[in-house]
Amino acid sequence: MAFTTTKTIASFGGKLFKLTHQSTSTGTPMAVNLYLPPTALHPTNPRKVPLLIYLSGLTCTPDNCSEKGFLQHRASALGLAILYPDTSPRHTSATTLPGEDDAYDFGSGAGFYLDAIQPPWAGEAGGGGGGYRMESYVTRELPSLLFSSSNECEYSRYLAGPDSVSITGHSMGGHGALTLYLRHPGLYRSVSAFAPIANPSRCPWGRKAFEGYLGAEGEGKEDGEDGWKRHDATELVRGWKKGEDLKALVDVGTGDDFYKQGQLLPENFERAAKETGVEGLTVRYQEGYDHSYYFMASFADEHVEHAAKHLGLL
Amino acid sequence: MAFTTTKTIASFGGKLFKLTHQSTSTGTPMAVNLYLPPTALHPTNPRKVPLLIYLSGLTCTPDNCSEKGFLQHRASALGLAILYPDTSPRHTSATTLPGEDDAYDFGSGAGFYLDAIQPPWAGEAGGGGGGYRMESYVTRELPSLLFSSSNECEYSRYLAGPDSVSITGHSMGGHGALTLYLRHPGLYRSVSAFAPIANPSRCPWGRKAFEGYLGAEGEGKEDGEDGWKRHDATELVRGWKKGEDLKALVDVGTGDDFYKQGQLLPENFERAAKETGVEGLTVRYQEGYDHSYYFMASFADEHVEHAAKHLGLL
Repeated sequence: MAFTTTKTIASFGGKLFKLTHQSTSTGTPMAVNLYLPPTALHPTNPRKVPLLIYLSGLTCTPDNCSEKGFLQHRASALGLAILYPDTSPRHTSATTLPGEDDAYDFGSGAGFYLDAIQPPWAGEAGGGGGGYRMESYVTRELPSLLFSSSNECEYSRYLAGPDSVSITGHSMGGHGALTLYLRHPGLYRSVSAFAPIANPSRCPWGRKAFEGYLGAEGEGKEDGEDGWKRHDATELVRGWKKGEDLKALVDVGTGDDFYKQGQLLPENFERAAKETGVEGLTVRYQEGYDHSYYFMASFADEHVEHAAKHLGLL
Repeated sequence: MAFTTTKTIASFGGKLFKLTHQSTSTGTPMAVNLYLPPTALHPTNPRKVPLLIYLSGLTCTPDNCSEKGFLQHRASALGLAILYPDTSPRHTSATTLPGEDDAYDFGSGAGFYLDAIQPPWAGEAGGGGGGYRMESYVTRELPSLLFSSSNECEYSRYLAGPDSVSITGHSMGGHGALTLYLRHPGLYRSVSAFAPIANPSRCPWGRKAFEGYLGAEGEGKEDGEDGWKRHDATELVRGWKKGEDLKALVDVGTGDDFYKQGQLLPENFERAAKETGVEGLTVRYQEGYDHSYYFMASFADEHVEHAAKHLGLL
């Protein structure tokens, strides 16, 4: 089987499956949670459901948002599956990389949803180390496993398929959602983000991560595939077609300390979209909300509805 | 001021206030969370709102359910405040009682919502120790502070008052909700419980707690105020008037390991109510649900609605 199911938890009328599998992208075991709504699991009249991928923020595992984000509440009612991937490889003590567990904002729990090219994070041929390839993991490996037409994945039969997927995320996961959406046109039906790191090239979190995973800024490769600009939502949105609907919803709390410290920079993203003539971007500044799951949970229903609308459920 | 506000968190359109205060019931500082819905905080047209008290289960602090219970979601829409008391005194290291922190199911985090009479849990005159008086704390001290007509409590003006209160709780807190409701007729408008310890005299958790806080079973005092029967919902409901509406909703998950182990015994409570001719008790066995906040959150909307109905909001 593609996945080992370690736990099945009843939630909002559906079921949350805690899964593990050996990832070829990262070369490590990976944990991922999958929520299936009651419509998918109906004993006599099941319906194949679209999927919303939720990318978590720094330090989080698949469990945090499954417990505290409340996406399941509205997803249950609308008939939407949710996939919660992990935020990085998690090496065992025997194969831990130097510095991997030293900081909350780099290494484990902080994969930034890109494929690292710098040693040791890029990994070795044969999976001997590294494996910080979270972009390949999220955009290719997980869908190929989940939507496998063979019987390899027992959950495939509940899902509508690769054409019925949207993406969302929080903080570093908001960066992930926006960049993977913009880098892979057509892969997702819509995007949303809670307090995303929207211009990582220009904020401390992003600069530290990009330098570590991609190498120093500049060096004449900014426009190459692995340049910083190719992993920065504010730069990527400039490549979006003028007048084309971005189908994007972004919420940011005005009481968010990381917003106030300039880690998120949603205004830069908004401005770049506006200058490019992009349509269909809604950025809302929510009065007094912080960066926590209290914030995320408060707007979870609406982000699920945003995805559901573009997935044909509303 | 009655309370010190240590943090204010925006949540579902309202605000969650993290409070601390020096309790006369326990002789210790106590933490408590208060959620106010947007109707109460409306800048020009505020409305005084009724209150739902939520009692937490073993090991929990006021924060667990505030983050994971999802009560705020529906309370926000219906205009209901929620109070999250702690589960026991929390002594500082200088005044910790012998054995207080040794077990998850006795001592700190496990006050069982009764007033202990056994040393050292009963405390000393002058507050020199003990202070496991969570019944007095929840039923008398907290309301007297919250509904103070003086200006002592800055939150009084948002609340409808002591006649507009309902109670709910989870596990040990479900025991607390049921017993405080049954012991204090008229104090609460309705009661509900998630996976309550419904017959503590007959289960390991309850017997350990009662023996420690109240003394050994028997000794000729079962019918006295401090006897076990006076703190056991299944015994207390036998004193309810035949035909009178209990206004009680109880949910239990059929996949709950503690239910299966006989820690909850909701059937005993149901049977006692039926034998007594009590009306208005709904006990629902929810297929496959466990004991966790995943379970609680899944039915939080409905428990808030149950309280709201009896508080005149629906």
